[in-house]
Amino acid sequence: MRSYPATVSSLIHHCTFSVLRRTLSLRSPATVTTPMANGSTTATEDSLRRALADKQSTIDARGSAIRQLKSSGASKSEIDEAVKALNNLKLEKTSIENQLKASISGDSGTSRDAFRQAVVNTLERRLFYIPSFKIYRGVAGLYDYGPPGCAVKSNVLAFWRQHFVLEEDMLEVDCPCVTPEVVLKASGHVDKFTDLMVKDEKTGNCYRADHLLKDYCKDKLENDLAMSADKAAELKHVLAVLDDLSGEQLGAKIKEYGIVAPDTKNPLSDPYPFNLMFQTQIGPSGASTGYMRPETAQGIFVNFKDLYYYNGNKLPFAAAQIGQAFRNEISPRQGLLRVREFTLAEIEHFVDPDDKSHPKYSEVKDLKFLMFPRDEQMSGQSAKVLCLGEAVSKGIVNNQTLAYFIGRVYLFLTRLGIDEKRLRFRQHLPNEMAHYAADCWDAEIESSYGWIECVGIADRSAYDLRAHTDKSNVALVAQEKFAAPKEVEKLVITPSKKELGLAFKGSQKMVAEALEAMDEKEAMDMKAALETKGEVQFEVCTLEKTVAIKKNMVSISKEIKKEHQRTFTPSVIEPSFGIGRIIYCLYEHSFYMRPSKAGDEQLNVFRFPPLVAPIKCTVFPLVQNQQYEEVAKQISRSLTAAGISNKKDITGTSIGKRYARTDELGVPFAVTVDSTSSVTIRERDSKDQIRVNVDEVAAVIKDVSEGRCKWNDILQKYPAHTSASADE
Amino acid sequence: MRSYPATVSSLIHHCTFSVLRRTLSLRSPATVTTPMANGSTTATEDSLRRALADKQSTIDARGSAIRQLKSSGASKSEIDEAVKALNNLKLEKTSIENQLKASISGDSGTSRDAFRQAVVNTLERRLFYIPSFKIYRGVAGLYDYGPPGCAVKSNVLAFWRQHFVLEEDMLEVDCPCVTPEVVLKASGHVDKFTDLMVKDEKTGNCYRADHLLKDYCKDKLENDLAMSADKAAELKHVLAVLDDLSGEQLGAKIKEYGIVAPDTKNPLSDPYPFNLMFQTQIGPSGASTGYMRPETAQGIFVNFKDLYYYNGNKLPFAAAQIGQAFRNEISPRQGLLRVREFTLAEIEHFVDPDDKSHPKYSEVKDLKFLMFPRDEQMSGQSAKVLCLGEAVSKGIVNNQTLAYFIGRVYLFLTRLGIDEKRLRFRQHLPNEMAHYAADCWDAEIESSYGWIECVGIADRSAYDLRAHTDKSNVALVAQEKFAAPKEVEKLVITPSKKELGLAFKGSQKMVAEALEAMDEKEAMDMKAALETKGEVQFEVCTLEKTVAIKKNMVSISKEIKKEHQRTFTPSVIEPSFGIGRIIYCLYEHSFYMRPSKAGDEQLNVFRFPPLVAPIKCTVFPLVQNQQYEEVAKQISRSLTAAGISNKKDITGTSIGKRYARTDELGVPFAVTVDSTSSVTIRERDSKDQIRVNVDEVAAVIKDVSEGRCKWNDILQKYPAHTSASADE
Repeated sequence: MRSYPATVSSLIHHCTFSVLRRTLSLRSPATVTTPMANGSTTATEDSLRRALADKQSTIDARGSAIRQLKSSGASKSEIDEAVKALNNLKLEKTSIENQLKASISGDSGTSRDAFRQAVVNTLERRLFYIPSFKIYRGVAGLYDYGPPGCAVKSNVLAFWRQHFVLEEDMLEVDCPCVTPEVVLKASGHVDKFTDLMVKDEKTGNCYRADHLLKDYCKDKLENDLAMSADKAAELKHVLAVLDDLSGEQLGAKIKEYGIVAPDTKNPLSDPYPFNLMFQTQIGPSGASTGYMRPETAQGIFVNFKDLYYYNGNKLPFAAAQIGQAFRNEISPRQGLLRVREFTLAEIEHFVDPDDKSHPKYSEVKDLKFLMFPRDEQMSGQSAKVLCLGEAVSKGIVNNQTLAYFIGRVYLFLTRLGIDEKRLRFRQHLPNEMAHYAADCWDAEIESSYGWIECVGIADRSAYDLRAHTDKSNVALVAQEKFAAPKEVEKLVITPSKKELGLAFKGSQKMVAEALEAMDEKEAMDMKAALETKGEVQFEVCTLEKTVAIKKNMVSISKEIKKEHQRTFTPSVIEPSFGIGRIIYCLYEHSFYMRPSKAGDEQLNVFRFPPLVAPIKCTVFPLVQNQQYEEVAKQISRSLTAAGISNKKDITGTSIGKRYARTDELGVPFAVTVDSTSSVTIRERDSKDQIRVNVDEVAAVIKDVSEGRCKWNDILQKYPAHTSASADE
Repeated sequence: MRSYPATVSSLIHHCTFSVLRRTLSLRSPATVTTPMANGSTTATEDSLRRALADKQSTIDARGSAIRQLKSSGASKSEIDEAVKALNNLKLEKTSIENQLKASISGDSGTSRDAFRQAVVNTLERRLFYIPSFKIYRGVAGLYDYGPPGCAVKSNVLAFWRQHFVLEEDMLEVDCPCVTPEVVLKASGHVDKFTDLMVKDEKTGNCYRADHLLKDYCKDKLENDLAMSADKAAELKHVLAVLDDLSGEQLGAKIKEYGIVAPDTKNPLSDPYPFNLMFQTQIGPSGASTGYMRPETAQGIFVNFKDLYYYNGNKLPFAAAQIGQAFRNEISPRQGLLRVREFTLAEIEHFVDPDDKSHPKYSEVKDLKFLMFPRDEQMSGQSAKVLCLGEAVSKGIVNNQTLAYFIGRVYLFLTRLGIDEKRLRFRQHLPNEMAHYAADCWDAEIESSYGWIECVGIADRSAYDLRAHTDKSNVALVAQEKFAAPKEVEKLVITPSKKELGLAFKGSQKMVAEALEAMDEKEAMDMKAALETKGEVQFEVCTLEKTVAIKKNMVSISKEIKKEHQRTFTPSVIEPSFGIGRIIYCLYEHSFYMRPSKAGDEQLNVFRFPPLVAPIKCTVFPLVQNQQYEEVAKQISRSLTAAGISNKKDITGTSIGKRYARTDELGVPFAVTVDSTSSVTIRERDSKDQIRVNVDEVAAVIKDVSEGRCKWNDILQKYPAHTSASADE
C-alpha cells in the first residue's frame, strides 16, 4: 500500500550512481572510452602475449637442456651450437616484447602525448588558460581563462544562445549557485552524489578508489610483459567493469592486488563514499546547510510552474540556463577536462510523454554523422555513420524530440569547428542509464585523452519534476484541455467514515487514506474479496499493521465520468553541455603546426572559425611610420565601433614574426597597412592576400567574421596581393 | 626599524572596515543616503517638534488652570469658556502632529512605496525576477532572473563588454569563484570582511546590530511625536554616525535604548563580528579551507604578472572580469539591492603612480553631470552639475585616469537608460576611505530606496598588489626602462660582519638586517651620531631590544649609481559595477503607467532602450488567419536569423491587450500583420505606426534595435499608418 509520493521516493533509492552524476563527467572510464571497448587492438595483443609465453617456455626448456648437456659432458661444439640457438630464441623473444609494447601503447601513444604537450604549452603560454592562484602554487582542478580563452568562451556561449535559446524560443533563466539542502535532497544529490574514496592510513591523503585500481591495471598491462594472457584478460575485464564495482568489490580488488598509497606505499583504508558537493552554511545561524550547485538543472525544475505559466500554460517548451557548477573532485586530473568549477549550459525541454514528436524534426532528419548505438557497442563493433531519421524510424533513437536535439547538437559542435570525423554520438548502455530514463546519448569528442563526453542528451521522463513535487508538495504538472469532454471510466473508492471510526477510532483517518490510495488492481481485488468473504486483511503502512476491513467500511466502484482535461507530469529531455570540455577539444581540433617561410622552425596555428576566434583581426603597419600607424589606428577604431574585436601590433618586429604571433592566437584575418589608401588583408590558413580600400576594411572583416560571407567570396571580389614584399 | 613586508602588513591592520567591503554594498547607510545627510527636511521638523512641545505645555498649564477654576468655584460659563479654549488648543496640537508626521515621512514617502510596489509587482508577475527556490519557501537574499530579466542582464553585460573591454582594449579574464584561504588572507577579507551581529539570547536568531539600532531610531523619530527636539537630534546623530560606531559603541547604545529582539522581545547578546564569506572545504581531506569569492578583483591581482607580460610588459593596461560574487549577509533586505549572490563586473586599470594621465581623457573632459564632491557633502550642500575637466583641473577629482573612468561610467549608465537627473557621482568622505586610497567616487542612482551605490570607482594606489607580493613572495611589479641611464644618488649601508659577529654572536644576522633596513633619514642620523659620538643606541625589533652600535660596525655612505630602469608597484584604479543593482534601478527609471485607450485602466510600460530591451520585437497577426500567421512566422524567422530576439503572439486576444502585454515587457517594437505584402510597425512609447514591406521588416528592426538608426529617422522614411483599425 503505497501512496504516490512513496513511489517517487523509491525511484530515488533505486537510481544508479551514474544517474546522479547526471549531466557530465558521469564516470571517468565512461567519459574516456578505452580502446578495448571498441574491441580493436585486443586480438594482436593477446596473440603476442601467448607467443611471448610460448617463447619463454621454449627458452626455459632449452636452458635446462643445455644444463643437462653440460652435466652429461657433451662436446664443446655441441654445447656452443645449443647456446647459439638459445641466443637466437632470446632475440626472437625481445622482438616479440617490442611488438607487444608497441601494441599496448599504440604507435600513436607517444605522438598523442607530444601533440597534447604542444597544444597545452601554446595554450598556457598565450594565456588561453592558466592554473588559478599560481603565485600561491595553485589549487588542483581550478583554472583561469586568460584574455584569449575568455574571448573564446564568450563567443561559444554567444553562439549557444543564438543557436539554442533564440532559434528555439527557449526561456532562459539565471539562478544562484548557492542552493539550500532541501532542493538537493529532493534531487538525490545529498544522498548519492558521491565517489568512492580510500585514505592513506598513516598520512590521511585521499585517493579515488577506482583511479588507483585503474592505474594499477593499466600499469601492469603496459609494463609487465611477462604477464600471462589470462592475467591480462582479467585486468582488462576489471577495467571494463570498473564503473559497476561496488565499494566492497573495489576494496576487495585493492586488497587482492596489494595496492598501496602511491606516494608513501602505506596501506589504504576500505573505500567509502565521499559527497562531491561543496558544502557551506547559508546565513549566520549555522542552522541552514547549503551547497554550491553541482549542475544548473535543478534551478529550472523548481521554477517549472512559473515557466509553464509564462509560456501560456502550453507544452512543449524548453528552458535553458548557462552558469557555474561545482564538484569537489577527490583528485582532479586531465587538465581542463576534470575540474572543480566549470560552466554548464543546460536545456530542459518539457514535453507531453504521450507525444514526443517535434515540429522542426524535418529540419534535422536527413543529417548523417557518426553514431554508436547500444547494439554496436555490445557486439564489439565501432561507431558508424547513420542517418538520424533512419535511426528514429528503426527505433534506435527513442523519439523525435531526442533526435532533434541530437541533430542540433551535431550542428552546434561542427559549426564551432569540431572535426566531424572525431565526433560521435554514443548511446548509453542499459547499466549506464537509470531505470526511469527512456534513452540517453552522449556527444563524445575524440581528443588526446581518448573519447570525451562533452554533451549529454537524455530523455529523463518525469523523474525530476516528480521528485520536487514529492518534496515540496507543489504539483509540478501540466494540463491538456480536451477539444470535447471525454468519457472516462474512473475508480471511485469511498471509505465510510462512520464505520471506520467505530472500528479504528483514532486510526480512522490513516486507514481511510490507505484505502483511497489503492491502485485499480488492489481495489478491484478487495471489492471481489469483500463481496465473497465479507472481510479482508489490509496492510496500512502508516500504522505498520494489518487491519480487518469489512464490507460496510468502504464502497468501491467504477464510474463513467466526463473529463475536460487531463493532468500529467511532463517528460523532460535534457541536453547538457560541458562548455570547458567542448572548448578544450576545440583547441585540440583547431591546432596544427607548419614550417616557417625560412623552413627553420615549426609555427603553431589555431584554425578557429571566425565565429570562435578570440580576436577577429590584427592590424599592423608594414613598417614603423607615423602615417601608417595613423591608418592602422583608424581601421582599428572602425572595427571596434562595428563590434569586431581586434588588436593593433605596432612593434617593430618583422612582419613574418607578427603573422606567427597572430596565427598562434587563431586570429583569422590580418590587415597590413602598406599604403594610406588601400591595405592588404591576409587569411590565416590559406595565407591568401587581397587588396582592400581603407574605408571598406571594417565592413569586409565584419561580414566575413559574422558569417554573412565566406573568405572565398571575398577572394573573388577583391584583387589579390602578390607583391614581392617580404611578408612571410 | 621595519623591513618592507612588515610595512605592507601594517597597512592591512590599519585599513578601515569600509575598505574591505571594497567593491559594493560597502555599508548600508552609505549606500542608501538618508535625506538628512543633505540637511534638507531637518529645519521644518525641528521647529514642528518644538511647536508641539510648546503646545503640549500650554495645554498642560491650561488643564491645571481649569482644575483650579473648578476647585475655586468659578462660574459655569467661565469654566465652559476655558474648556472651549483648551479644546481649540488640542485641535491645534493635532494639526501640528499631522504636519510633523508628514514632514517626517515626506509627502513622497507613501507615493514612493506605492510606485515601488507597482514596479516590483510587474517585475515578479512577468518573471523579470522571482525569489529563488520559491516552491521550498525560498531563501532570503537569493533571486532567479526569469526569461525577460535574464535577457536584460545579458544585454547589459554585452554592452558592458563592448563599452569597456572592446573599446578600451582590456584584458578580460575568468577566474573561479572557489578561492583558497591564502588569497583572501592576503587581501584582508579573512580577518576583516565582517558585519557586527547580535543574537537573541534565547532563540539564537541573528540580527545586524546596526540594523536594529537604525530601525529603533527611525521608528522612534517617525512615531514618537511627543519626543523632544533634543532627543530627536540625538537619534538623528546616531543615524548619521552609525557606520563609524565600534562594536562596543553599538552595544552600549542597544543597552541604553533597551532594544530587544524584534520577533521575541528577548534580550540580545553584545555585538560581535560575523565574517560575510561563504566558507567551504576544497578537496576531501578537510585540511584546505576555501571561500566563495566576495568580489572578482582578487583573481585579477594574483594574475598581474602574466597579464603584464601578455600586454608586452607595458603600462598602463586594464584587466576586466565579469562573474558571480557571494556575501553571506546576516539578514538581507531591500530585494535585489542586497543579495547573497550577485554578478559583479570589475575593472583593474594598472598605471604608473608617477603618471596618471590618460590618452583618451580629452574624449570625456567636456562631459557635464551631477557630482557631489566631499566639500559639498561636509558643508550640507547638495550635488551639482560640474564639468568633469574642471573638476580635475580644480583638484576635486584626483587624476585624469580616475576622471576618465568616471566619464565612461556616466556614458555607460545613461546609454542603458538611467535617468541622468537621478544619477550622481559622490566622492567618498575621508572616513569612508582607506588611508592608502588616493580618491574614490561612487556612481549613485536614485531609486525608491534612496540613493543607491551602483558603481564604485576608486584609486586604490599600490595596496592590493603589495599585499599579494608580501604574502606570495612573488614580486608583482612593473619596470620602466629609461631611454638613457640615469645617475641616482643611492644610500649604501654596509654592516661589518666581522665586528657585528664579535659583538653580537648569534644575533649578528638580525642586527645586520635591521641596519640595512634603515631609511635614508635614520641612516644619515646614525652616520652623523657615529661620527660625533662613536656609538649609538639602536632598536632591533626582531630582537625586541636595543643594542649599542659602534663606528666600526657599519659603513654608511651615499653613492652615485647609474640606473637603466626603475621598478615599481603600479597603482590600480578600480571601477566596480554591481550589475543587479544597476538593473534594478534601470527598472525603476524605465517604468511608467498610462491609461488604456478606453481610459478604464492604467497600463504598465517599461521604456527600455532597444539596446536593453529583453525582446526587441513582437510579431502578431491582426486577426487569426492562416495567411497572416504564415507571414508572422516568416518575419519572426528572418528576425531570428538576424540575431534579433522576438516573440510571436498568435493568441486571439484583442490587439490592444496584445500591445499592453508587450509594453509591459518593454518590447520597443511591435509588428502587426494586417496584409500579406506590408505590415504595421508600432513604437512602444510614442505609439507611432508606420507601414513597411514584409521583406524589409527584419532589416528595419535590426537597424533600429542595434542603434544604427533612430526611430525618428525611420518615421520619416516610411509612410505613417493611420487606419482606423481598432488597434488600441
